[in-house]
Amino acid sequence: MYRPEIRVVDCTIRDGGLTNDSYFTLETVRAVYAAACAAGVDYVELGYRNSKEMFSPEKFGPWRFCDEDQLRRAVDGIDPRQTKLSIMQDAHKAVAEDILPCEESVVDLIRVATYVKDVDKAIHLANNATDKGYECTINVMAISHEGSPFLDEALQQMEEETSVQAVYVVDSFGALYSEEVHFLIEKYKMYLKTKEIGGHFHNNQQLAFANTIEAIIRGANYVDGTLYGLGRAAGNCPLELLLGFLKNPKFDLKPVLEAIANTILPLRKEIEWGYHIPYMLTGTLDQHPREAMALMKTAEKKEFVKFYEHLIEDPGE
Amino acid sequence: MYRPEIRVVDCTIRDGGLTNDSYFTLETVRAVYAAACAAGVDYVELGYRNSKEMFSPEKFGPWRFCDEDQLRRAVDGIDPRQTKLSIMQDAHKAVAEDILPCEESVVDLIRVATYVKDVDKAIHLANNATDKGYECTINVMAISHEGSPFLDEALQQMEEETSVQAVYVVDSFGALYSEEVHFLIEKYKMYLKTKEIGGHFHNNQQLAFANTIEAIIRGANYVDGTLYGLGRAAGNCPLELLLGFLKNPKFDLKPVLEAIANTILPLRKEIEWGYHIPYMLTGTLDQHPREAMALMKTAEKKEFVKFYEHLIEDPGE
Repeated sequence: MYRPEIRVVDCTIRDGGLTNDSYFTLETVRAVYAAACAAGVDYVELGYRNSKEMFSPEKFGPWRFCDEDQLRRAVDGIDPRQTKLSIMQDAHKAVAEDILPCEESVVDLIRVATYVKDVDKAIHLANNATDKGYECTINVMAISHEGSPFLDEALQQMEEETSVQAVYVVDSFGALYSEEVHFLIEKYKMYLKTKEIGGHFHNNQQLAFANTIEAIIRGANYVDGTLYGLGRAAGNCPLELLLGFLKNPKFDLKPVLEAIANTILPLRKEIEWGYHIPYMLTGTLDQHPREAMALMKTAEKKEFVKFYEHLIEDPGE
Repeated sequence: MYRPEIRVVDCTIRDGGLTNDSYFTLETVRAVYAAACAAGVDYVELGYRNSKEMFSPEKFGPWRFCDEDQLRRAVDGIDPRQTKLSIMQDAHKAVAEDILPCEESVVDLIRVATYVKDVDKAIHLANNATDKGYECTINVMAISHEGSPFLDEALQQMEEETSVQAVYVVDSFGALYSEEVHFLIEKYKMYLKTKEIGGHFHNNQQLAFANTIEAIIRGANYVDGTLYGLGRAAGNCPLELLLGFLKNPKFDLKPVLEAIANTILPLRKEIEWGYHIPYMLTGTLDQHPREAMALMKTAEKKEFVKFYEHLIEDPGE
């Protein structure tokens, strides 16, 4: 009934950190980490290791930088069981020097997020990570805006110039329909003969879980989820749905349910994520969610028609 | 880009009526009707015509019965454009005598909801409707609990013994994954050589929209949506997402957005629907949502693990 190759990455704290500038309390992060470990999730991603030159530590919380001592405080005393620790580096906002040799770090996996245009930066960071002994993936963001020939060239480069274990389809805009997921996974498979394929989907159109299933059906073996879908704007594929779908007996849903009740739902007093019409509109129109996120902070957040008219305004020929 | 045969049914008031015993104000119903007409939706379903012998008019609101004069008040003065009016009859809770000849009624379409075991009652009501001049469909509920050979026999009967225009796959429990939708539509197609196929999906696993797309890809031409997903428990496929997906230029999203802002979102003060863990659990486990709906009305509604353990309790061999 199940495909043992499938790896689940919980990125609640990392993607959720885009809703609150990565200001989670240590208590929250430890609770999420403990739940992921107890649930048997393969990797748990606790934030970004981005550059303090490019992000001010005055303005962003500790999970934007994931200093080693901070990570150690997060995991201290919790039995990881089989769960490995992941961090993310943005190709255009992180530096190789911030990565210690793997044996000096608590981190197991480094995921490099990139746009197609920054693929050479991503390859540099990925090779830095694998050279230093880490597992590594490259996650190609905003994939719904990428087409031939540049995406194809980038896939070919990642195949030839790195030894990452997986390359991800990342639907940053929550715009993809199942047929497009199918098409992209097939394209990835054409180029990435020696790598696994991953999928990370946003929920603007309530399709994050469905697209994750579609990716799995088409052969993706790395899939992301977050507790109760916590993540930027409309959020992500809910981990609880994903674990309910996967039949691997190593997974246990109960710690996830417990963490949702006790740790995640209370966060809704401070941060907002999930299905809202402004996010739905940017998703349906395949646009960046930034204007929807800005609108949601204003009194006009229910002026749906006005916002829609703004989004579909003709740029002229 | 679009398939002109696709028919969209808005059933906001009908399915939403399962959250509030069909007690919508006339103002709400008129606003939903006007929005559906302005949006170019093919059918709008304003409730059930169920038997007053079986449902007490003391306990249920007017949209459980949809008396002709009540329906006339709902549509009076609103230009229907191309939109037709639908009502639903439950095969086991409605009677043929409550249906006037079509020319005396404002109703165009009668949809008969049934379990497989009640298919003979459904066929009786369907033939009553078509004999009296109405368009008609049969909607097979709780489809995730139906298997061979009884479903197959019922499909064969509906093909041979009725002249309904469509037979629906109804995922009452919000339990179906895309592969099961695919399987069911193929099975329906095997038997229903002279009918269209329809899809009505619940959103327990955030798959209602995705399953609607899957049904369309596999050939279903009748699909249901509700404004902002309003419907029993986790609700339905959101109409706004469906119209955003369909490329038929006759559809206009703006009246739908307007109605969500002004009519539907304010209802959240009185009724609750949408994604909640108890509904997710019954969906994932392919169980009736009744216990989740009961739990949601208690102080224990966040006791997710306890509820999960209750649901998976072993019945013994």
